[in-house]
Amino acid sequence: MSDENTRHREKMQKIKAARDRMMEGKTDEKGLIIVHTGPGKGKSSSGFGMLCRAIAHDMPAAVVQFIKGAWGTGERDFFTTHFADQVTWVTSGEGFTWETQDKERDIAAAQAGWTKARELIRDPANRFVLLDEINIALRYDYLDIDEVVDFLLTEKPDMTHVVLTGRNAKEELIEAADLVTTMEATKHPFRDGIKAQKGVEF
Amino acid sequence: MSDENTRHREKMQKIKAARDRMMEGKTDEKGLIIVHTGPGKGKSSSGFGMLCRAIAHDMPAAVVQFIKGAWGTGERDFFTTHFADQVTWVTSGEGFTWETQDKERDIAAAQAGWTKARELIRDPANRFVLLDEINIALRYDYLDIDEVVDFLLTEKPDMTHVVLTGRNAKEELIEAADLVTTMEATKHPFRDGIKAQKGVEF
Repeated sequence: MSDENTRHREKMQKIKAARDRMMEGKTDEKGLIIVHTGPGKGKSSSGFGMLCRAIAHDMPAAVVQFIKGAWGTGERDFFTTHFADQVTWVTSGEGFTWETQDKERDIAAAQAGWTKARELIRDPANRFVLLDEINIALRYDYLDIDEVVDFLLTEKPDMTHVVLTGRNAKEELIEAADLVTTMEATKHPFRDGIKAQKGVEF
Repeated sequence: MSDENTRHREKMQKIKAARDRMMEGKTDEKGLIIVHTGPGKGKSSSGFGMLCRAIAHDMPAAVVQFIKGAWGTGERDFFTTHFADQVTWVTSGEGFTWETQDKERDIAAAQAGWTKARELIRDPANRFVLLDEINIALRYDYLDIDEVVDFLLTEKPDMTHVVLTGRNAKEELIEAADLVTTMEATKHPFRDGIKAQKGVEF
């Protein structure tokens, strides 16, 4: 082994030892409240990637799509076609608010989605529940933030992960969450005249 | 319809009109160079979510995992079990560098992964290629950043999307990319003594 490789090994052994020490203190197993927010891409798609992981681990899962729109049918088709036995799928939103242009209908849809979401989360058979784009409904006060946070903190079964996505997550939700990731748009192709792409945006 | 709902509709019509005007200029269809970077969660999982979308659209896809480690087997099992016909899967990394502690072996693995990645990207049958955690290999100079960027800009077929993930993306890659998202860790449960969770972290 070369000298450089020996030095590299020593450095990596130190990193591994520090990492092992750090991980030793991490012993709690619990279901997490997870938020994906921010203006960048990847909030929903990482939720769906986590859903793949849950399915891979045979964890029964559920999805409530609060905002459907023209985009988002790709994921639904994928999971409802291939994994109907493992994933319960609910689409409550009928489109983006600027598509429907009917606030009363949007509120009714959001409330119906939340009623269904509570039922799915309360059912301890479900170990992973994705509330896709619920932050949009919360932002417009179509759902009451205090009610949602209170429910998650008091009624979510201990071992269930709940993932809440959408930009502009409310501060109360960020406070209550165990894990919050903010997706920042460092560079976006719309700036360069490129339209939404199949397999990327929808 | 209530007055409030009428005002809401007018406001949403304006937003929709502005959005439609913005989208009119977006006519190019092309395969994108996409980067997911930053210290937060969701870089790989959103790549795998996009892979679901690609499969849903019957776009043949490929994955090269540059860093496997103990984490990351969930995704591989999921896709190789259910979608072997649609996804080509290559695992080149044998673990995190602080696990293997052998730089020469890590470099050889990264180079082998890159050779395979070029072949998969060049094949125009593949419409979506995920280079998972390649940024780690680039950061340690196990792969040459200029070679990777030059290849992507000159040899990637026009209609193929390539997604490159991993923290610390090099500036040259960010420059070359069409779409860059930075995942920021707004809140992380490791701070509170909670260990990595099945279905979330792996």
